[in-house]
Amino acid sequence: MKHWKNKSFLLDGIKRGDRVILARALTLVESNLASDRHLTYSLLHELEIENKCSKRIAISGSPGAGKSTFIESFGMQLARQGKQIAVLTIDPSSQVSKGSILGDKTRMEELSRHPNAFIRPSAAGDVLGGVAKSTYSSILICEAAGFDHIIIETVGVGQSEIAARQLCDFFILILLPGAGDDLQGIKKGIVEIADLIFVNKADGVSMEEAEKTRKAYEGSLKFFQERITGWKVPVVKGSALYRTGLDSVGQWLERFYMQHGDEILRLRVSQQSYWFENWWLEAIKRSIEQDDDLSKTLNKLRGEVLLGQKLPLEASEEFLSVFSQKMPRHKA
Amino acid sequence: MKHWKNKSFLLDGIKRGDRVILARALTLVESNLASDRHLTYSLLHELEIENKCSKRIAISGSPGAGKSTFIESFGMQLARQGKQIAVLTIDPSSQVSKGSILGDKTRMEELSRHPNAFIRPSAAGDVLGGVAKSTYSSILICEAAGFDHIIIETVGVGQSEIAARQLCDFFILILLPGAGDDLQGIKKGIVEIADLIFVNKADGVSMEEAEKTRKAYEGSLKFFQERITGWKVPVVKGSALYRTGLDSVGQWLERFYMQHGDEILRLRVSQQSYWFENWWLEAIKRSIEQDDDLSKTLNKLRGEVLLGQKLPLEASEEFLSVFSQKMPRHKA
Repeated sequence: MKHWKNKSFLLDGIKRGDRVILARALTLVESNLASDRHLTYSLLHELEIENKCSKRIAISGSPGAGKSTFIESFGMQLARQGKQIAVLTIDPSSQVSKGSILGDKTRMEELSRHPNAFIRPSAAGDVLGGVAKSTYSSILICEAAGFDHIIIETVGVGQSEIAARQLCDFFILILLPGAGDDLQGIKKGIVEIADLIFVNKADGVSMEEAEKTRKAYEGSLKFFQERITGWKVPVVKGSALYRTGLDSVGQWLERFYMQHGDEILRLRVSQQSYWFENWWLEAIKRSIEQDDDLSKTLNKLRGEVLLGQKLPLEASEEFLSVFSQKMPRHKA
Repeated sequence: MKHWKNKSFLLDGIKRGDRVILARALTLVESNLASDRHLTYSLLHELEIENKCSKRIAISGSPGAGKSTFIESFGMQLARQGKQIAVLTIDPSSQVSKGSILGDKTRMEELSRHPNAFIRPSAAGDVLGGVAKSTYSSILICEAAGFDHIIIETVGVGQSEIAARQLCDFFILILLPGAGDDLQGIKKGIVEIADLIFVNKADGVSMEEAEKTRKAYEGSLKFFQERITGWKVPVVKGSALYRTGLDSVGQWLERFYMQHGDEILRLRVSQQSYWFENWWLEAIKRSIEQDDDLSKTLNKLRGEVLLGQKLPLEASEEFLSVFSQKMPRHKA
């Protein structure tokens, strides 16, 4: 189907908000083919890259915390208010199954049928614990297609939150009732990057426990520095299933964007730099590891360092000298 | 003074525990001259590199928390027990003053005069927020010289703790009384990497406040995963000045090494790998940034990314292709 790779066809479809064409464009974005990537960049440059009115929201939490239910319920609340919601979910199983679209549609049944919503599962493959490199581009495509709320779901395994933090403006962490325990299997440091904590399943018999958890987190958050000056991370309890507490989340979200518009724009610029600095170095690293000679040297040195035969600094200097021999240098 | 660079002279002096020669060896270790570095590696290989009986302890805390006083008092306690203590302090001012040895000696007056102790201020220069690359080698030299307690003092500005964490077995965080406030100017995440928290200045009128702080931290630590399985981070209050609470710190330290000997050895091996992986990539990065052509390209792309003219991924691919042209590749 050649026209799926026709730029003006795609441009036109995205701008019109055509869901089928949008889906195809996102497939293009995820492609590893060099030609597809160039088409992607070209597309993005012609679309309205910067949509200053969009809200980029990451949803994180450990497995079973109720992330999908939360997105379904919160998304429905936004959709009913006339908002346009794009959900980019990361499906941890999809590295094997190559995308479980049906699975995701089932997980968010009501939302997936709403005309204001668009759900896109991404393969969890690639780097940085489940957040694909293409996610950044996918966000921009969705914004160009007119979505004003981009919801990024992460799998909650540590690294992916760090990546999601650098993709979103507002980070919501979903927790289960049960304070006093460990951090519910969530890697350390994730609580710190949240802009809002939602203690889910505050219903029925868990009500009291949920309030205890809410208070405990509220208390321990006092020990953290504010990520954005003046923003005290709210800890909200509620039930994604029974759709309580979500109004409050919506209000905090609005308040965040009202109060911190300038910081958010600055944040986005710094995120662009963050990704560039990460990606160019990663690309160089990969290129080195794929180089026959260099990777052999690297692995030999790794072994020697592990066995204590070489000091780390000594080995790294040795590697640099091998590298430098390969690359003719121009002194700055 | 040529013999300061004579290997067997240095080796002999270090093994004898000669303080003057040890000090010279550490100066050699800190040198940026290629020839000095090679002598350092050669020295370290001939010394007993791995001293499995040593304890590597990092001391961190915000300025004014009483790190030096703690090291003075805790160090004296160890010295009186017959332990051999080497203190590697990182002096934040020394980037300008090129080492304030007198300053440090004054800061730890009693300890600096004790025959079992050796205090070495390092320039805070170089990378990673005050922990020099040479610190790793300095630790090994001190161990080879017979020191069984290596105390690394960090300046408490974020990055340096991450680095110190990768140099030590046991990380002590010094805090001041005053819970309920922010994290006392300490960057987020540092509480998480501690193996013991010492609430200092628990004396006189601050006694009650100190206990409140101790309890608050003890409470909020419950929310963190254990860094080492089975080790619940103790929160001890005391006074470094009046030398209270230090027995308890000593007991926890002993217990840590008794309970977690295997993990500590594993940790040290993984630290070697950590530094190698960091340093080789850092060396490559520096070499790229020092290359005239490549750094020009990089800066041009950085500007374009900041202005939103290029997407981060697009720019990083462009950089890779410029890099690849310079480096003849061998496919793995």
